[in-house]
Amino acid sequence: MNSSPKIAITMGDPAGIGPEIVLRACEALASEALHPIVVGDPNHLETIATNLHLRTPKEILECGCVDPGLEPGRPRAIDGRIALQCIITGADLVASGDSAALVTAPVSKHVITATEPSFKGHTEFLASRAEVSDPLMVFAGIRPAVALLTTHLPLVTAVASVQRAAIVGALARLDEGWQRWFGNRPRIGVAGLNPHAGELGLLGCEEDGEVRPAIVEARREGADVHGPFPADSVFRHPTLDAILALYHDQGTIMAKRAPEVSVNTTFGLPYPRTSPDHGVAYDIAGKGIADAEAMIAAVRLAAKMAANR
Amino acid sequence: MNSSPKIAITMGDPAGIGPEIVLRACEALASEALHPIVVGDPNHLETIATNLHLRTPKEILECGCVDPGLEPGRPRAIDGRIALQCIITGADLVASGDSAALVTAPVSKHVITATEPSFKGHTEFLASRAEVSDPLMVFAGIRPAVALLTTHLPLVTAVASVQRAAIVGALARLDEGWQRWFGNRPRIGVAGLNPHAGELGLLGCEEDGEVRPAIVEARREGADVHGPFPADSVFRHPTLDAILALYHDQGTIMAKRAPEVSVNTTFGLPYPRTSPDHGVAYDIAGKGIADAEAMIAAVRLAAKMAANR
Repeated sequence: MNSSPKIAITMGDPAGIGPEIVLRACEALASEALHPIVVGDPNHLETIATNLHLRTPKEILECGCVDPGLEPGRPRAIDGRIALQCIITGADLVASGDSAALVTAPVSKHVITATEPSFKGHTEFLASRAEVSDPLMVFAGIRPAVALLTTHLPLVTAVASVQRAAIVGALARLDEGWQRWFGNRPRIGVAGLNPHAGELGLLGCEEDGEVRPAIVEARREGADVHGPFPADSVFRHPTLDAILALYHDQGTIMAKRAPEVSVNTTFGLPYPRTSPDHGVAYDIAGKGIADAEAMIAAVRLAAKMAANR
Repeated sequence: MNSSPKIAITMGDPAGIGPEIVLRACEALASEALHPIVVGDPNHLETIATNLHLRTPKEILECGCVDPGLEPGRPRAIDGRIALQCIITGADLVASGDSAALVTAPVSKHVITATEPSFKGHTEFLASRAEVSDPLMVFAGIRPAVALLTTHLPLVTAVASVQRAAIVGALARLDEGWQRWFGNRPRIGVAGLNPHAGELGLLGCEEDGEVRPAIVEARREGADVHGPFPADSVFRHPTLDAILALYHDQGTIMAKRAPEVSVNTTFGLPYPRTSPDHGVAYDIAGKGIADAEAMIAAVRLAAKMAANR
């Protein structure tokens, strides 16, 4: 009997570093208790494996056919189509239960939107496909983890979105998702919006008007929530499992500057989904120097989450 | 002949960790080519040195008289007066040229404002005393260093302050201050305001409307400025000396999460001034466990800047 969880891994943008780091991760994880299913073009993966002296993965689910004229680092709209097809196939695989978790390699939003204008990113696409209206982006693998109240909004719009009901909803999704995928109730800290978390009301009104009432309400509903804390020190808090950041850069700067490797995961989907916390890196694609550490961490975290599915 | 620069070091809030870390830093730096002049109450410093088995500094400039009933971690308004008097004495010492640089230990703004309501912080106080209207807060000692366009403003006000003329002015002060105190022209990157630095105009208009025109103007004036870069990756840029962050938390999260020890310094003053990048830490005051690493880094940086005075 093989109890290793099956992990679907999309190859990402064929012209980016995705295929390379997927191959490297499969090699690095070969002896671990998980069963990768790479979703992509077997010929393209084989070519890259040969060029970079890497092993071809044991199981590839054929998806897309990359034009052999592709040059690494030079993306084309046609490759965006293939990248999107891999996401769809991977999502179907995990939704049907044929894999236990989904890991996505980086794609370029700009390349995909050339043929699919509605594409806003993996998180939004997978959520829409699963009919989930409010996915929560969480950077895990770091301590504390970091969740984002809002993602891709102009800052002025994000500030206006710091509202009690939205915060209560995000805290509930963070609390529930954490319990579901990590198996314990998280201790959550909320970052303040303003410098020094508003400094007792001297520097902005959102902490008192929106954030504190939301924390009170979330606690009443059973979540273990604290704050608001100054955003520039909350990540040093010794006993928090997770932070709710109130806008994109507040959370992503914390996550990307963490000493550990951050893994992007989505709460709210009916299955575990992770991805490395970096982009397609066209500038180094095909050179054999891409670091697979983040992809390895993403696959390991997906396997851990799958154990709680 | 003794060419070691004289460095005035205020003891900070008597009830905080300031006196302890000043004593520890003086001990740690005893063999280095600098000459500390501690500004504070000799009896209070002596008491703490005795309690914590530390040496009393060679040179103390007497300032203030701490009530012997003071309990560490329990600040009183009267101690705020003494902390402020030490800042004034230290500032006079460095302004007159009797010391080459000023290092300030942490104070509590709330404690000082109990008797001096206009006090907004070291940076603003020292700038006002030196008749400087636009000091620039810079976190140095990390690479890249981080400067703040605005400091203690509600975020919504800070966003509205992201304007071409203000950015041009801050870039000029950063460029000039860096050359004056560090001796070379800096390569500067400007952080974007919006996620992904506005993503080609899709996520907010400030990058195109204010930031890019400011960069063009600053370059025309001779500064070596680049960007705007996404704020959540600009700190990884391999060739930048300094980043201009567009609001408080954007810069302070970068600085406080840097792998190196960040030192707060002020550009625009007629003398070098640094301070450790942390607060009074009342919770651990008097316990002998305060880490002086940041204070040591602040004194060393002040000495380095003094060499360029």
